[in-house]
This record gives sequence, structure tokens and C-alpha cells, in this order.
Amino acid sequence: MTSSSSNRPRARVPGGFRDLTAADLVARRSMLDTLQRIYELHGFEPLETPGIEYVESLGKFLPEAADQPDAGIFSFQADYDEWVALRYDLTAPLARYFAQNAQNLPRPFRRYQVGTVWRVEKWAPGRFREFMQCDFDTVGTASVAADGEVCMVFAQALEALGIARGDYRVQVNDRKVLNGLLEVCGIALADADTVGAVLRAMDKFDKFGVEGVALLLGAGRRDESGDFTKGAGLNATQVDRICAFLSAGGRSGSTADRAGVLATLATAVAGSATGEEGVAELTEIHELLDAGGYGSDRVAFEPSIIRGLEYYTGPVFECELTFQVPDDKGRMRSYGSVASGGRYDGLVERFTGEKVPATGGSVGVDRLLAALQAKGRVSRDWEGPVVVTLMSKRRAPLYQAMVSELRAAGIRAELYLGTSGFKAQMKYADRRNAPLAIIAGGDEFDRGIVQIKDLRLGKELSADIEDRSQWVADRPAQVEVPRDQLVASVQAALAGRLIG
Amino acid sequence: MTSSSSNRPRARVPGGFRDLTAADLVARRSMLDTLQRIYELHGFEPLETPGIEYVESLGKFLPEAADQPDAGIFSFQADYDEWVALRYDLTAPLARYFAQNAQNLPRPFRRYQVGTVWRVEKWAPGRFREFMQCDFDTVGTASVAADGEVCMVFAQALEALGIARGDYRVQVNDRKVLNGLLEVCGIALADADTVGAVLRAMDKFDKFGVEGVALLLGAGRRDESGDFTKGAGLNATQVDRICAFLSAGGRSGSTADRAGVLATLATAVAGSATGEEGVAELTEIHELLDAGGYGSDRVAFEPSIIRGLEYYTGPVFECELTFQVPDDKGRMRSYGSVASGGRYDGLVERFTGEKVPATGGSVGVDRLLAALQAKGRVSRDWEGPVVVTLMSKRRAPLYQAMVSELRAAGIRAELYLGTSGFKAQMKYADRRNAPLAIIAGGDEFDRGIVQIKDLRLGKELSADIEDRSQWVADRPAQVEVPRDQLVASVQAALAGRLIG
Repeated sequence: MTSSSSNRPRARVPGGFRDLTAADLVARRSMLDTLQRIYELHGFEPLETPGIEYVESLGKFLPEAADQPDAGIFSFQADYDEWVALRYDLTAPLARYFAQNAQNLPRPFRRYQVGTVWRVEKWAPGRFREFMQCDFDTVGTASVAADGEVCMVFAQALEALGIARGDYRVQVNDRKVLNGLLEVCGIALADADTVGAVLRAMDKFDKFGVEGVALLLGAGRRDESGDFTKGAGLNATQVDRICAFLSAGGRSGSTADRAGVLATLATAVAGSATGEEGVAELTEIHELLDAGGYGSDRVAFEPSIIRGLEYYTGPVFECELTFQVPDDKGRMRSYGSVASGGRYDGLVERFTGEKVPATGGSVGVDRLLAALQAKGRVSRDWEGPVVVTLMSKRRAPLYQAMVSELRAAGIRAELYLGTSGFKAQMKYADRRNAPLAIIAGGDEFDRGIVQIKDLRLGKELSADIEDRSQWVADRPAQVEVPRDQLVASVQAALAGRLIG
Repeated sequence: MTSSSSNRPRARVPGGFRDLTAADLVARRSMLDTLQRIYELHGFEPLETPGIEYVESLGKFLPEAADQPDAGIFSFQADYDEWVALRYDLTAPLARYFAQNAQNLPRPFRRYQVGTVWRVEKWAPGRFREFMQCDFDTVGTASVAADGEVCMVFAQALEALGIARGDYRVQVNDRKVLNGLLEVCGIALADADTVGAVLRAMDKFDKFGVEGVALLLGAGRRDESGDFTKGAGLNATQVDRICAFLSAGGRSGSTADRAGVLATLATAVAGSATGEEGVAELTEIHELLDAGGYGSDRVAFEPSIIRGLEYYTGPVFECELTFQVPDDKGRMRSYGSVASGGRYDGLVERFTGEKVPATGGSVGVDRLLAALQAKGRVSRDWEGPVVVTLMSKRRAPLYQAMVSELRAAGIRAELYLGTSGFKAQMKYADRRNAPLAIIAGGDEFDRGIVQIKDLRLGKELSADIEDRSQWVADRPAQVEVPRDQLVASVQAALAGRLIG
């Protein structure tokens, strides 16, 4: 509490962190309410694990953490015997929770969690070290019906949020199908370098198309800038086979429905037991989706979905928004991925030694919110309260009574609490984005009336009307009403019926 | 991912942390929704600051942190140049936010924030290192109308949560009045030891009554165990004066209304300019409360409210639940404090040098939630989804269709996703706290029907009915309905009209 300016802390947040204000928070709350409702509709129940876990509970699942268990996470010891850290996702804590409570939990255990996670990553505009995830998982069943449900939840959630069919695509692939493809192409799964190069190449299908992937699978690809990326070194037969596989899905521009993609995949992996098992899984998911009323327009099979294969063991999901939005440079682009997931088996086993199959999905809260804002599906503004201006401190109780009446009627309202004059109060109401200001001075009190000023109208006017003075003269955005009609008049004004 | 059991991490959370499950979370969500609605009704808008701040931004406001800036908080450096820490409250970050954005914020700035905070405190059952706060503050006005609003928000919030008038008391005191009392008693404010001893003694009024406080103000007090607490050493006149002051409020058992307390306070501090200023502040608050319809049954003046006086500079608030609940030892006790607040002036000044008066309140989320649960004002149970049992994997799509129909009608439902037999499925439905199970085997499919089993009824029966077998025989908790009547029948069953 020093008064010397040199000792004062500078008011700022650490890099990678940010403050969120009313408009974003209200939009996010509305979005999360919908997601939670859809998760609960599908039988998932809420769980909240703590923000801090033992480092050894979190495991080494971040790519950065291959060598150091605490790389990429905020870790510290405080007064504990072992290191603890802020969680970097909601899946590792779920595995810890399930392992800790396995005896008392129903199987399958189906939970969702909305929560903040933290990562020590490079920060940049739009890229933060603290963000929110919204996950749902089914733990303790190998049934692919649980995987089918992940797709249904994604589709239901997006539609409930106002994303129309045709504007999104839930895309499904299966790690076993991919492994089967590699097998029939004669690529040994143990050859991690080649497998990695092939999968990275396949993952570029969306970006470079079939020709680009063919180059990356073969000798290599030179980009427009002249940079050369070495290829996976496959021969022409192998490349053709993989490219035919990739082209079976909707990303290639074909309109293949799930049954059609399944037929192509079955041919592509024929002879590989693993691959055939994957096709059988997808077939079962397909039948459940059909029975649930989820056609190929909502959930598609997409062979070019790769994702983090070291983590996932069966079906994988990626939820893409297909409508166009301008990118940083103003070019129109598909919005891209807003949610993903897959089947994973190793997480609980880490703790207990018991194999516990699990599957689930995760919604990227910030990305989805930005998409909804781009689509106009959530409000971008926070409308402030009705502001009762204060013309005389002596009469404060009279103004207070007005505010209390408005609130009792459920109208968001406040008494101006500062000490400035009328002009500053109107500016304040404007900054608060108040819809209405209530004005009453000595004259109004004497006459038993109040003035209601519509501030929204004023804003619309300044934006739209050329000859504002004339418009206002014809149609003033302010009316006087009897004091005892305050509440009814404000309700009418909020409903847009202020000016007769 | 080792398979050796000796290398496996033990599944547990660090001391002071916990997992929260569905019943608690749903109750908390409902409570927070109400609090947010009331805050917004009063003109506060949401803000979210990050979980991590620079240590120097947080300041030294925890009692433990008098000497070390990072005592009592989780601090770490990560890759920053300076130390950062998890926030320990929501007020210090508000001050940082206001200082950082002062140019662009309306004045007064009125925000609320719901957020998790972390403290390195001794943990114990019911005492955690991670907990939630729900604050609202008005920054940038010295008007005590803003203090009056804190009281109104508290009262409105508790009533909206189902706490009846008479079951709570918003209690108000004023630091200036207390200082005035010390002054007229001839106690120098600069004599920190005596002032501290006097205030600690006064703070015991609720616990020890006027006799106990009189001893603590004078020579000292010996408790039932024989332990002696040294007194503040005041003379009899001083003690009498302070005890008369303390006895003016409702805690003394008197039914004094605000006007009556004000009169006593005015007499008690007469002659002290500071004290008279405090009485004037309370008088203004009193008039605003009256004008807003807040009588002494809702908001009272209570001279024995002391709180953290080094922090607060004017009116202070404490919100007490007055209904009785059994304590740890089964004795009935008043529930006690669930929210508090006060006026504080130094926080923003730390950053900018500008004096920025502020006032606000904070709800103890966990304590209030526990109170609502004790009062039966929020549910203690999480009702699970309707569970559609799976009698044949071959027919999974037929079951899936049932689930999808139920969900399309807005009914929370799930297909049993495990691989166990019927008995285990019924046990699963029971563990999920499912209200109904849907059952259909080969016979049912042939006949075009499904069975609906009411699991709630089963539970009530096992609890209440002595001769269960007879009861069930007379009135089976299971009916068969046509398959095409599934949704309507489930809706009827959920509404309690299953058994005719």
C-alpha cells in the first residue's frame, strides 16, 4: 500500500491469460447450458474434479511431455510431499477419479465435465494458456454403441445450438481400419518412422487434396514457397491404394453415404483381421445411427480423419463446421473442427492394472463459441440494466423506490450510484448499454410523472437516420408517463412500444 | 503405461482437494443461477478474470501473508520473469482489472464474478484449499447508496433461494461508528494493541454475550476449561460504554428496529466527528432501505459486527442464517454467516495511486449450499436417465430407436451400453438412480409391446411397506404398453401415473 508510484505494481495479466467480459460470458453461458442439457438428455451426469492433481496422476499425455513429466503443465510443490500441477485436460482426471472410485461406480460410468484447463504453451492472439473444455465420456464398456452415441451427442448438440444440418459434419474413422490399411499395404506397424510419415501425409488430405497426399506418401512434395517435405517413400501401388481409401469419403467431394464408404473400406482392408474388425465396428455404429435417425448428412464416415493415433484405440471422431467464414486474410474458408474424440483404453489401466475401455468426446468451448458468434447464433452484446438517473441526492429514497419497483417486476434496473451531473449520467447509461433511462427532477416530482428515455432508439437513429434532428422532432425517443404507471410503461418500452 | 503394479500411480487427490458429484453439482448450479439472476437484476454484469495472476498484483491481503507475499497462496514461476500465483479471492483481481481498464470502464463499474479460488490453508473435513466464491462489487463511487444495495442484494438473493424472512438477517455496522466509539472511550486508534484487543473482545459478543465481553474488555476471562484470556485492560466506564453500544442490536435479544439502533449509536459516539459521520452514513442507508421496502426484519443494524477492520473503511455487512441446525455434536445451533462484505478503498490505489472507493459482497458458495440442503431448498439427489435395457445385441438398433424417440421428446434416456445380463442391468439402473427401466425381449417384440418398470416405486416400497410381496402382487410396479405408445407411456410414468 505504498503511495510511491515507482513501487506500484503494474496492472496486467501474465502472458497467455485474459479477462472475459459480459457479452462473451453471457454467450458462453447460454452455449454451455445447451451442451449440458444435451449431455444430460443422453444419460451423462455431471462431475467436477479439482483443478490441481498430483503430477503422477496426470501422466504423460501431452506431446511436450514425452521426456519430462511436468513439461507443458503448470507444476509446483507447495507444501506437498510430491509435485502437483494444474490439470491440462479433463480426461486424465477422469481416469484418476474412475480408478479411485471404481468399486462404487456403475459400469458403464457416464459423466460430463465442464472445466478450465491450463497448459504452458506458446501464447499468441487467440491462443491462451487457460481455456475451457466440455467433455463427455463413457467409461467401462467396449460396446461400440457407446461410440455411436458420441456421434449422436455431437449432432444433437450442434443442432440445439442452432447449427443447421448441412452446416456441420460429424466424421468418423476407426484406428483399426487404418491399421488394417497399413497392413494390407505391407507397412509394418512396428516401423514407427514410416507409419508416422504415412499418417502425417494422410492427415493432409483436407489441406492438399489427393495429389498432394500422393506426393507426400511417395517421394515428397515441394510447396509454393519452394520448401521441400520429404515423403514416406511408398511405391506407386501403395500410394494408389491409400489414395483410393482416402477418396472414399465426403472430403473428396464424393457424396458417398455411410453404406458406400463402408463398402470401399471393406474392400480396402480385405485380408487384414484388424481392418475387418474395424469395418465391423463401423458397420455396427452405422446401424445404430440409422436406427436413431442419424443419416449420412449428419454423421459421415471419413477415411481421412487421422487424429492422435497413439492415444486412441478404435473409433475416432471429428466434428467439423462446413459453412464458410472469412479467415485472417479475408478469404472464405470452412470454419473447421470444433469437437473431437475417440475410444481410448490405457488411461485407467495406468492406475489399477485393469483394462477399462472408454470412449468420449470433447467440445472446444472457445472455438465453438466463436463459430456461434460468427453465425449470429448467440448474442454479441450485453444489454445493461434500466438506469434510474439521480437528479437530487436529497430525493435518493424516492429514486430508490422506483428501482425497487422495477426489480420487483423482474426488470433489471439500477439507481445511478455515482456523484456526477445529468450529462455524465446519460453517458454512463450509454456505456452500460442501458436500454432505457428514467429521468425525474423537481418538475416531474411536482407533476407526479417520470420521463422514460429510450437509449436503444437513440443508437439506432444515430446509425441509420440521416436527418436526425428532424426525425427526433417528429418522433421523440422520450415520453413522460404517470409515476404510478412506471413499471407498466417500462415494460412496454422494453417491448419496443415506447413511442406511440 | 507400465503394467508393473509397483510403478503404478495411486489414484488420489492432493490433500485439501475433492471431487464433486452430480447431486452436489446440480444443487450448486441451481443456486448459482439464482444468485446470478439476482445480481443481474440489480445491474451487476458478469466478469471473468484468469485463475493465475502476478503475485505482485494479488498483494498481501491474506492474514498469513503479512511478511511473505506468497504465503497462503499457490505460487510458481513457470516460464515467466516474475512469480505468478493462483488467485486466493476475487477482489484483488477485480482491483487489477479495474486499474488496467479504468479508462474504458463506466463509473461506477458494477460487476459480479463466480469463480474458483485457491488457498494454502490447513485442510480438514469440510475445509478445502479450492473453493468457489460469488462476489458482486461496485467500484468507483463513495455513495453509500451502493452500500445499501449490497444489503438489498443479500436479502433478495436469500429470499429467491427459498430462505424465508425471519430465517435470515442482513446485519450492518460501520467502521467509522466503531472508530468513533473508541474515540469517545478515550482509546487512541494509534494504540494498535489495545484497539486489537478491544475489537477481538467485541467480536465475541455473539459467542459469550455481554458478560463475557465485559470480562474480555476489562481484566480478562477464564473459560470453562480453566484457560485464561488476558483482557484489554479498560476501566469500568469504558467497558460499560462499549457494552451498552453492543447491546443496542438484535443479537442482544432486543427487537430494536434500525431507527432505534441509530438513536443508541448516535448517543454512543456523540462528540466524535468520525463517529457522527458513520451514523450519518447508516442513516442514509436506512432511508434507502425503507424506500426500497426493506424493513428491520430483513436488514438490521448490528453494532457487534466487527469483521476485518484493517481491510474495510466504512459500512460492513454480515449475512446470518438464524434458523437452527444440529452441529457436529447434535446440539441445535444457529446456522451462522453465509455472506459478508464491506466498503474498501485501498485496492485500486495500490496500482494507480488514484483513490477509488468501492464496496461489495461475497457469498460463501459452499456454506450457503450446505444451508440450502439442510433446509431442503435444493435437491440432494440426482435422478438418472430412463434406462432402456438390452436383451439381445442383435436387436441393438431396435433399442436404439426407442432411446432416440424418448430423447426427441426431451426425456433423459440411455441405452444400456455394457455387456452384462438382465439382473446386472437392473442393478445398473438402480445405481444410476434411474426412475424407469424399459424392458423388451423376444416375446415383447413379437407382441409389439414394451415393459415399463418403475424403479422409484420399488425404492419407496422397500423403504415404507412392511409386507412388500403382498403390496407388489396387488399393485405391480411394472406395466406393459404398446410399442408405439412408448413415449406417451413413459411421460405418464414419469409424471407418476404409471400404475392404474
